[in-house]
Amino acid sequence: MRGTPAFEEDKLHEECGVFGLTLPEGENRDAAYTVYNALFALQHRGQVAAGIAVRRPEGLVLRKGPGLVPEVFSKQTLQKLSGASAAIGHVRYSYEGSDDGNEFRAQPILVHHAAGNMALCYNGRLVNGAQLRMETETRGGIFQIGSDAEIISHIIVREHLRTNTTEDAILNAMHYMIGAYSLVVMDEHKLIAARDPNGYRPLCIGKVGNCWGAASESCAFDALGGHVVRDVAPGEVVVLTPDGPESYSCGIRAKGALCAFELIYFARPDSVIDGVSVDLFRREAGMCLARRNTVKADIVVGVPDSGLSAAQGFATQSGIPYEMGLMKNRYISRTFLNPHPNERRTAVRLKLNAIASTVRDKRIILVDDSIVQGTTAKRLVRLLRDAGAKEVHLKVSAPPFLNPCYFGTYLPDSDKLAAFGRTGEEVCHMIGADSLQFLPVEDLKTIADTLNWGHCDACFTGNYAVPVPRQKG
Amino acid sequence: MRGTPAFEEDKLHEECGVFGLTLPEGENRDAAYTVYNALFALQHRGQVAAGIAVRRPEGLVLRKGPGLVPEVFSKQTLQKLSGASAAIGHVRYSYEGSDDGNEFRAQPILVHHAAGNMALCYNGRLVNGAQLRMETETRGGIFQIGSDAEIISHIIVREHLRTNTTEDAILNAMHYMIGAYSLVVMDEHKLIAARDPNGYRPLCIGKVGNCWGAASESCAFDALGGHVVRDVAPGEVVVLTPDGPESYSCGIRAKGALCAFELIYFARPDSVIDGVSVDLFRREAGMCLARRNTVKADIVVGVPDSGLSAAQGFATQSGIPYEMGLMKNRYISRTFLNPHPNERRTAVRLKLNAIASTVRDKRIILVDDSIVQGTTAKRLVRLLRDAGAKEVHLKVSAPPFLNPCYFGTYLPDSDKLAAFGRTGEEVCHMIGADSLQFLPVEDLKTIADTLNWGHCDACFTGNYAVPVPRQKG
Amino acid sequence: MRGTPAFEEDKLHEECGVFGLTLPEGENRDAAYTVYNALFALQHRGQVAAGIAVRRPEGLVLRKGPGLVPEVFSKQTLQKLSGASAAIGHVRYSYEGSDDGNEFRAQPILVHHAAGNMALCYNGRLVNGAQLRMETETRGGIFQIGSDAEIISHIIVREHLRTNTTEDAILNAMHYMIGAYSLVVMDEHKLIAARDPNGYRPLCIGKVGNCWGAASESCAFDALGGHVVRDVAPGEVVVLTPDGPESYSCGIRAKGALCAFELIYFARPDSVIDGVSVDLFRREAGMCLARRNTVKADIVVGVPDSGLSAAQGFATQSGIPYEMGLMKNRYISRTFLNPHPNERRTAVRLKLNAIASTVRDKRIILVDDSIVQGTTAKRLVRLLRDAGAKEVHLKVSAPPFLNPCYFGTYLPDSDKLAAFGRTGEEVCHMIGADSLQFLPVEDLKTIADTLNWGHCDACFTGNYAVPVPRQKG
Amino acid sequence: MRGTPAFEEDKLHEECGVFGLTLPEGENRDAAYTVYNALFALQHRGQVAAGIAVRRPEGLVLRKGPGLVPEVFSKQTLQKLSGASAAIGHVRYSYEGSDDGNEFRAQPILVHHAAGNMALCYNGRLVNGAQLRMETETRGGIFQIGSDAEIISHIIVREHLRTNTTEDAILNAMHYMIGAYSLVVMDEHKLIAARDPNGYRPLCIGKVGNCWGAASESCAFDALGGHVVRDVAPGEVVVLTPDGPESYSCGIRAKGALCAFELIYFARPDSVIDGVSVDLFRREAGMCLARRNTVKADIVVGVPDSGLSAAQGFATQSGIPYEMGLMKNRYISRTFLNPHPNERRTAVRLKLNAIASTVRDKRIILVDDSIVQGTTAKRLVRLLRDAGAKEVHLKVSAPPFLNPCYFGTYLPDSDKLAAFGRTGEEVCHMIGADSLQFLPVEDLKTIADTLNWGHCDACFTGNYAVPVPRQKG
Repeated sequence: MRGTPAFEEDKLHEECGVFGLTLPEGENRDAAYTVYNALFALQHRGQVAAGIAVRRPEGLVLRKGPGLVPEVFSKQTLQKLSGASAAIGHVRYSYEGSDDGNEFRAQPILVHHAAGNMALCYNGRLVNGAQLRMETETRGGIFQIGSDAEIISHIIVREHLRTNTTEDAILNAMHYMIGAYSLVVMDEHKLIAARDPNGYRPLCIGKVGNCWGAASESCAFDALGGHVVRDVAPGEVVVLTPDGPESYSCGIRAKGALCAFELIYFARPDSVIDGVSVDLFRREAGMCLARRNTVKADIVVGVPDSGLSAAQGFATQSGIPYEMGLMKNRYISRTFLNPHPNERRTAVRLKLNAIASTVRDKRIILVDDSIVQGTTAKRLVRLLRDAGAKEVHLKVSAPPFLNPCYFGTYLPDSDKLAAFGRTGEEVCHMIGADSLQFLPVEDLKTIADTLNWGHCDACFTGNYAVPVPRQKG
Repeated sequence: MRGTPAFEEDKLHEECGVFGLTLPEGENRDAAYTVYNALFALQHRGQVAAGIAVRRPEGLVLRKGPGLVPEVFSKQTLQKLSGASAAIGHVRYSYEGSDDGNEFRAQPILVHHAAGNMALCYNGRLVNGAQLRMETETRGGIFQIGSDAEIISHIIVREHLRTNTTEDAILNAMHYMIGAYSLVVMDEHKLIAARDPNGYRPLCIGKVGNCWGAASESCAFDALGGHVVRDVAPGEVVVLTPDGPESYSCGIRAKGALCAFELIYFARPDSVIDGVSVDLFRREAGMCLARRNTVKADIVVGVPDSGLSAAQGFATQSGIPYEMGLMKNRYISRTFLNPHPNERRTAVRLKLNAIASTVRDKRIILVDDSIVQGTTAKRLVRLLRDAGAKEVHLKVSAPPFLNPCYFGTYLPDSDKLAAFGRTGEEVCHMIGADSLQFLPVEDLKTIADTLNWGHCDACFTGNYAVPVPRQKG
Repeated sequence: MRGTPAFEEDKLHEECGVFGLTLPEGENRDAAYTVYNALFALQHRGQVAAGIAVRRPEGLVLRKGPGLVPEVFSKQTLQKLSGASAAIGHVRYSYEGSDDGNEFRAQPILVHHAAGNMALCYNGRLVNGAQLRMETETRGGIFQIGSDAEIISHIIVREHLRTNTTEDAILNAMHYMIGAYSLVVMDEHKLIAARDPNGYRPLCIGKVGNCWGAASESCAFDALGGHVVRDVAPGEVVVLTPDGPESYSCGIRAKGALCAFELIYFARPDSVIDGVSVDLFRREAGMCLARRNTVKADIVVGVPDSGLSAAQGFATQSGIPYEMGLMKNRYISRTFLNPHPNERRTAVRLKLNAIASTVRDKRIILVDDSIVQGTTAKRLVRLLRDAGAKEVHLKVSAPPFLNPCYFGTYLPDSDKLAAFGRTGEEVCHMIGADSLQFLPVEDLKTIADTLNWGHCDACFTGNYAVPVPRQKG
Repeated sequence: MRGTPAFEEDKLHEECGVFGLTLPEGENRDAAYTVYNALFALQHRGQVAAGIAVRRPEGLVLRKGPGLVPEVFSKQTLQKLSGASAAIGHVRYSYEGSDDGNEFRAQPILVHHAAGNMALCYNGRLVNGAQLRMETETRGGIFQIGSDAEIISHIIVREHLRTNTTEDAILNAMHYMIGAYSLVVMDEHKLIAARDPNGYRPLCIGKVGNCWGAASESCAFDALGGHVVRDVAPGEVVVLTPDGPESYSCGIRAKGALCAFELIYFARPDSVIDGVSVDLFRREAGMCLARRNTVKADIVVGVPDSGLSAAQGFATQSGIPYEMGLMKNRYISRTFLNPHPNERRTAVRLKLNAIASTVRDKRIILVDDSIVQGTTAKRLVRLLRDAGAKEVHLKVSAPPFLNPCYFGTYLPDSDKLAAFGRTGEEVCHMIGADSLQFLPVEDLKTIADTLNWGHCDACFTGNYAVPVPRQKG
């Protein structure tokens, strides 16, 4: 029914964006509509499904479905969610499980249990999900989807049997869950944000008018005319009340491990994560690349949109002028038909075009954020050469991918990674560039040093912050 | 998004139709497509949602959604279900719970548990559903919808923890569930049909080519070019294997209580239920009415479609000629826009029109299957009078509704029932007919006497076969 | 995008139903909504496309599209047409031209010309359409679709250049157009109904409250709570004003030629056409068949829905009891998926099922309205035999088809007609019935004698009321 | 059914993009699919409707509808257009006529006339359209839409009556049509491109593999892996044959008048129009602004996407560093719900966000392409100030709008234009900027001097290249 993404195959995917908002009494804002807007600002974090759960006088109500936010939520659908005192929402990419358009995997999930009702959504991935599921089933639990969201719900409900509040249940549950999870939970009384002890995925709290909320990225608050207040700390549970946030710690000591790729690629440049501006981070990466650069060139060109910040940093540091040498078609969408097999080369041209007057006869520094399988890079180099570029030197603002991720970032099997088992020169040759330079891991470490709680670079280094399975299943 | 039914407000609704099919090895039939056809033949039992779960080599796969069978299942959707060795399907009306277009209540439900996977659908309603849910939650269970289907799944899975097979789990579970349930269940190995100890809702098994199946009504087998073999007995669990059915009894002794309204209104006239032809049953009801009739009339007219059989029976017995005095618009559908409030009178005319040449200057016996609130009857009498009818005598092939149903038939609150607190004469006056005659309860008993296991007439008599709540919640 | 009709292939198709309504000043009825309801009552005359044009203060506005009336007109679409002082509408079958889902052929058509604007829709078919088109093109006219509706518009506009009013232009144009056309036309001031000099297709005028209107069939007025006033006479042009109809004659003398198949099959039984009740006509046909019957039988069964009236007439005349031996699935729709090629036999069973308790061991008179290619009849006979019928004697309430129609009824090429080049016995053998009887042409003539202006039976007799092409193109 | 654009109200709209392609014999490319891709590359020129007409063996076939290219053309729809030897396509904005979702105004238009068939689409606007329509109607012509495309078709068909070929008919027709029109026409034999004698709208020819084609912008050829060959000259008619283009001149002498706003805003920066790179043009405009700049600032920020080229030019010339201070949400789409009236301020933030780390405490040169009503500019200035900008100096890479356009660019009524009746200082004050500078008309003239055939700047200067109506209707 719905076309598959035609052009994004060689890009990393992430799972989700989350948002929650609670209204003080007497506030006449429409919580569902505000969350709708927030999800729209977080749409870059997931385009496969969207959902909103609200707390209305008669109970928690949920609507979700496949597609972009405006596709899932018509005016009529939003009206059915109006008059809520709190709401949480979610946008989803399609990593976890085989997806095949299965709308049942959309979040939030709404569960009824002994102590009441709870709507939950999260961003991340459990390392020990399969084990927790098996334990739950052994005790008679049933799974309708088998997703991490369902597993987390089971653990929280189990803990709720021996404690009084949802936040206490979450705090207890955190001792059993290993991996990445940034949770937003709503029950009949409270809105709660929780972040795993490593802080793999971003989560922050902020205000919109008089209302407190939680978001995957600070840009969601900006989009609503509000502002971010602070990040949720790794291992912290925050209850958002009309009087402000109440903070609890789960008490687990763990290494800070914010996914480096949130900064390099996933997040929007106007977001600030764990104290670091995403845009500045990327520009700094570009500057590092420039400091190590030995190539002579005429212009610096960034690959839109995610390579632009680093390209600008490179230009500033190197003195080589920044130019808009590539033009992106802003109407690219999931419904665009896949190209005929024998027109794959056309595909990239429909998405990106070189501006010939800018690149002709030029030696070009081309800056992109990462290389996964290398096919996109190869086509871009070819595109620039066809438009008259004399030389194309590729600068990548991340180190080469070498190891699997267990925390919510989809990476193809290692043997499909361009850098796996290849020297830099071999990758350069494969791509057809005149030269190729990755960001060294030590530079990444240096830049990431300003983060509040540390970062995870295991996909580059193999150094995981928590024990991981020997072999990826 | 979807219009609500414009014309059916004054009719009873029932919940569901179920169907299941298992293929012997080497059979090249497409199970999903056959179930699609069967659901289409059962469409009269539910138009709000439809679903099909299949067993494919890689596991159980489910697709469901709101709408009629052909709206939910496109060619593409069916293709994703192809190649299955077994399949079960469901059509749903909207009784249980507040519906408001909530697609999550559609069946089948697919659950993963300690011993494997299970797809389940059912027709009926539990009397002790709320209690079973509370018990389950107390043990840590969570509900995502809170439907009876989910409750039944929990009970079966709980019992599965202490037994080896799904059929044993079902047999155990039947000791805890009180009320109406005709179940069709599929796991990785078996297809199972089960009917509650009272046999409230119909369920039969049959063959399509070499394949065994289970259905709510025998007409589903006819539509597939197969044939019904026998009814599932109250309290029986039938495992359908390629070698034929294996039968087990749950061992509970209970009064037979097939819902009388299945015969009077819900089922298709070409179905045979518990040994009784629905068409013959209705004609017999019409004949009973005729035997007690004292009114002189020129023609007998049935209200299409459900009043036609009884009208024919009345005509045969009385010798008064049967005539097609009312014409039904066959394009009536759920998407037809609701009439403007001040055009309610038009609504019934869009659905039904009198054939003036037939009814003009005639004394008419008008036969309908039931009177709920009385508004439809009132409009029909008016319609016939406007077309020139001299007299309109209404014969109703069921006794008057007086009591609530707890077994899956939706009835409005008692104080909205036309016959509640009114004498027959008062109802007749309200409707505007020249005379009104209901089928006496004793006649219903006599006709239903040929059923294999007894019937339930509690909505007329208040005699429930199992204990029911004091007050309807 | 849209499924093709799965079950109707062996039935005749007709093109259209038309309706128009004009409101007196101060009337607060919504013209578009009333026409929507009327089209719904005429839906049996065309299910492929629908359209409504209205006259609003700012001019004529048109909305049309593919599908059933409720599919084309959502609440939003109707709201855009609200506030009109007059409206015309159309439902369309797919005969004229290759259809292939081409929505541009939907009617009404809206044209702007030297003297103003005009919306037009019609039912019928021009015999000399190709010639009129060529003449128009030679004078510089352009066609965007090439439909008869466009051709008729051109001729009327041409005549409007030399006269003052739309009705005069229509009256002039009628001298050039040969064939079948029942027109409903609206300009900025008037609503006009016109019927070809032979009166091939029905057209009547009536009232809804204080509003005058025109309709293909009287049942549309009944559905609106109004009533038919009279038929439009062949060759008549009626201008509908708030003060009542003004009548003009085109002055052409011609044989009355109402399509006999309107009475036999197309029209709804509750309509009255040219002074004859469609239901009575069909029952009279059944009675004629009964008078000539020599077969002994136990019951009479009609094929739903179009064979029921004739079956009842047969039963009344013969004294053999009428029984509901066939049950129709009322959810059959265009979106139902076509059966797999090797399941064609299943198809008819999904649409119709025999009621075994009624037909078992019976000698059956089966009454249907017509035989086109014979495939449906063959399947029905088989269906009844499979359900236990002892004998099946087929009675057809129309003579055998032998000749093409040039006036809007789609018939397959003659060599595909069951009766073409076959004796009655050969057709009977092909169908597998025990005996077969058609309505003799002379009986048809006798029954049709009560029509106001004569009828056309050329498809049976080859006697055309106007000159027709030698060979069907 | 479809949301209206929420955020683009304060931007100029243009009508259309056109594309055509003809295949040499034996070419196995799919013409419809190639045009689909080309329209996608031209999507920025119109998002309201799209259409494709193809030449297949059985004749010309047309499909069109409302929405973006991938919304109108599903796989199934494209398949119905496959196997064509030539195809033309169109994307449409909503200027001409009241649009209100009226799909009938979509192009191409397909007409049948005395000499054959013709599919036509165009970009532009006739100045004497109303007069040509009146003349046509006086001769008996009828209009179904009244669009310029229909008027042009009438004129061409009229001329075709006295000449043999479509190209001759077009050449003749050009003597009667005044205004802007870039035509692409296809008949059963030929593909023809024609541009009005002033050359108001761009049109070029190019090659894709062995196939010749015509396009509104050269970027369409790039997207297909082909290349532009040359512009169509003002007043030129080009017949595209397998052997290459044949050129004819209409013989009218006229001032070259390419719409300056094509270069400033409408066209994609990677296109080359009339010999000028759009990107270079915009950068040159930015450089001109920089040369006249007297303001001290820290960074230059462009408004995405159309202000980026000029911002870069400004930065290069001034030496002030270019920074990405504004971030655009790439998921903005027409289906996004309009903001609640009291959340208009939020709207701009959903579309654009300031990158606080970049703009905080900075004196900013903000470069945008134009100011229409001034509301967007006002919100942007506010957005930057809220994010901490110390000063915001707005540079506009076009002169102020003062006069209406009659050639296809939609401008609001003059009294709504920000610069109409206001001094620069007053506009600056209204917008809330610290200073405001427009591109002087003389600078625009200088930059546009390199165009092949002159430009039109009437919306700034009032100097129209052809006579225009006194008052805009």
